[in-house]
Amino acid sequence: MADMTHKFQAPKGTRDFYPAEMAVRRYIESVWREVSINHGFEEIDGPTFEHLELYTRKSGEEIVSQLFSFRRADGDTDYALRPEFTPTLARMYSARAGQLPKPTKWFCIPSFFRAERPQRGRLREFFQWNIDVLGDDSPRADAEVIACVIDVLKRFGLAASNVRVALGSRPVIIGILLAIGVDEQHHSMALELLDRRDRIESNKAERIAKSIGFSFAEFDDYVSTVSSVAFESDARNSPIWRKLQTQMRGALDVNSILLTGWSLLERGLGDWVSLDLSIVRGLAYYTGTVFEVHETTGKERAIAGGGRYDGLVELFGGPSTPAVGVAMGDVVLRLMLEDRGLLPSETEIAQHFGTQPDVFVISANEDTDSHATKLISELRTAGLHVRQSYKSTRNVGKLLGDANKCSARFAVIVGDELQNGNVQLKNLETQDQDTVALNDVAQLVRSAKR
Amino acid sequence: MADMTHKFQAPKGTRDFYPAEMAVRRYIESVWREVSINHGFEEIDGPTFEHLELYTRKSGEEIVSQLFSFRRADGDTDYALRPEFTPTLARMYSARAGQLPKPTKWFCIPSFFRAERPQRGRLREFFQWNIDVLGDDSPRADAEVIACVIDVLKRFGLAASNVRVALGSRPVIIGILLAIGVDEQHHSMALELLDRRDRIESNKAERIAKSIGFSFAEFDDYVSTVSSVAFESDARNSPIWRKLQTQMRGALDVNSILLTGWSLLERGLGDWVSLDLSIVRGLAYYTGTVFEVHETTGKERAIAGGGRYDGLVELFGGPSTPAVGVAMGDVVLRLMLEDRGLLPSETEIAQHFGTQPDVFVISANEDTDSHATKLISELRTAGLHVRQSYKSTRNVGKLLGDANKCSARFAVIVGDELQNGNVQLKNLETQDQDTVALNDVAQLVRSAKR
Repeated sequence: MADMTHKFQAPKGTRDFYPAEMAVRRYIESVWREVSINHGFEEIDGPTFEHLELYTRKSGEEIVSQLFSFRRADGDTDYALRPEFTPTLARMYSARAGQLPKPTKWFCIPSFFRAERPQRGRLREFFQWNIDVLGDDSPRADAEVIACVIDVLKRFGLAASNVRVALGSRPVIIGILLAIGVDEQHHSMALELLDRRDRIESNKAERIAKSIGFSFAEFDDYVSTVSSVAFESDARNSPIWRKLQTQMRGALDVNSILLTGWSLLERGLGDWVSLDLSIVRGLAYYTGTVFEVHETTGKERAIAGGGRYDGLVELFGGPSTPAVGVAMGDVVLRLMLEDRGLLPSETEIAQHFGTQPDVFVISANEDTDSHATKLISELRTAGLHVRQSYKSTRNVGKLLGDANKCSARFAVIVGDELQNGNVQLKNLETQDQDTVALNDVAQLVRSAKR
Repeated sequence: MADMTHKFQAPKGTRDFYPAEMAVRRYIESVWREVSINHGFEEIDGPTFEHLELYTRKSGEEIVSQLFSFRRADGDTDYALRPEFTPTLARMYSARAGQLPKPTKWFCIPSFFRAERPQRGRLREFFQWNIDVLGDDSPRADAEVIACVIDVLKRFGLAASNVRVALGSRPVIIGILLAIGVDEQHHSMALELLDRRDRIESNKAERIAKSIGFSFAEFDDYVSTVSSVAFESDARNSPIWRKLQTQMRGALDVNSILLTGWSLLERGLGDWVSLDLSIVRGLAYYTGTVFEVHETTGKERAIAGGGRYDGLVELFGGPSTPAVGVAMGDVVLRLMLEDRGLLPSETEIAQHFGTQPDVFVISANEDTDSHATKLISELRTAGLHVRQSYKSTRNVGKLLGDANKCSARFAVIVGDELQNGNVQLKNLETQDQDTVALNDVAQLVRSAKR
């Protein structure tokens, strides 16, 4: 039996959403959705699972161990639960690229799955908001995506002092690597070193660095010189920036991060953004500006991350398409909002969604039960949120207590007045109570609806 | 390459939701959600996958072939994508049964997965609305669930003439089987015969029937006699009903279907409901009233189905808990609404959700671009839905055309007036155009917000 019992729990790293938890999830999703729409993004979604090859195509075979993959007992097709949205996005964009507007601005809020060990801030199933701008290669598109993220953070009640939107740039890092003499063939190793810097032993890091002609000291020196002039209006003409430009031989625009930064300053978002060239964000994926959102306390994992990935749509069989996007998961976000007391209460959420009951119907005696049932049915069909008591008591005082407990706006008492076609209507906010015609209840409650 | 191409399609039986399809999905979900809330149900959700045993516990090992099941490469736990919600519901209710109200009224709108051959009305991934009342054994609870389903059908624009809510009863069928002399040990075979009646060859059916002492003719005779008195106010005192009652020896209440029917008549829903004792709905699961919703044309599969399942929570380790619920999928529903022209247009949906753009911002020349960008950012942060043109043209007439095309309510033209701190604000519905202060735009648009 002990064995039986553990089977009847939610799988490790997944969540049961009881009404209170579900309300918080809907609140978070509604902020994501509303801000996305205000910023001109349109909602899409794809399947919960895809062909396994869709994921190995982008990330190689190594990703398989992090996936929940499966095939049907009698089938020969491998599937995987989606670990992220970008491959689906690239597939969907590719399939209709010819008919889609330029740029195409999409958002989605699906659930994702990772077969990792669950830990604080990381679950096996989580919800994630994604926004992407496809078909616009200008730094303005990068800035638009970041501005939308900042608006989401604001809407959750966060201030520029609470979070840091750090901008990095793949081309700038490559430029620095070239400038300090790291061969092109060793760039991916150097990027990996930079990405994992805080997680590997320094001796080991130094040993690898040496073997590829890379120096942390030289790199950091360059980074601080570049950073010191960053976002100045004449940054592009500074010697250090000109040198990087020369290193890249114009192959990739190292200026785009500056333009992105300036575009954010233009929008009055300068307080939120800083340059952080240590941001690498994975390996083969990003081609331009990258960014991450962290708490200024540095307490939790990154709240959001994204960047420019101009090569990806083509990799999935679509036309060459510049693209930039960002993703924000619900798990770290919720931990942070909770820690800061920024999650609204259940009552506040109910008010936000208009899910507060409009009417609580009380039948004062058995004879009136069937009239009460009919009234409840009519009020609901009229679009009102109607609750009732399921208790056997006929104590109207107690039942009014239940009406208050569920925060109903009105109580209707169906009792003796019914013989004259009337009921008692009590406004539970003002405590005003009136005898009104049964047939007027819907209209009276509706007209008082906020 | 041909092989590569097929990999980059959505898996068979799943759907890509581009913005227009997504809008329809959100519309359907919003009707489900709003009506559920009005009827006093609270939203919950569970994990997308569960331990495989959760499903075999309820449905036996045979269900495995219809599931997408999987285990991690290095793991020893079998999981399955959820094919239905009830096992999750029973698990969640069991875990907190002590603290939950009686009755507990829950709804959810998750996606579900079935490894069946995709066909019209049946996909491998679909969305399904579930409502359940747990902890109330009265026929009133059955009626409440059915009344909520009828309200959903109404809200989608359907009339009683379009759909048929058919009520059946497991105890009544058992009563009839006993009355016509079928041994208890053969009841499940008889139920299976009745369930598959239309799908098996009549010779074969008769042969099986004979072997278990079951007669279709006798059964149908009983059914029509029972049906002829059904829902009459004195039905319970009719000889046929008394006989069934005696057959059941009071073990199960064969009257509850009458009480459910009467409760629906009481609510004014008599036109929607009819008795159909041929409804069996699977085998081991239901214990009382069962019901199905069909188009009156009989064209598509069932739109919704449900019933009373008093034993299930206990099966999952919870306390003995009466329960009744119903599920409605999005696939058949959408086909039917489409066929009848009842799906609102994309514009109507945008109006319904308030996703119509509030403002379309036009920058009349290069000098005003950065001011336009700042204005866009401010209006969005003020909670307005703002679009802009990404075209290089400065032809204001053409850009106003784009503003109209995306159904924006206002256009703001940032041009020469800017030197006096002004912009042009055009109401695209009335065509009124005024010169207004840049700083007043948000306020003016907001105050005109419907």
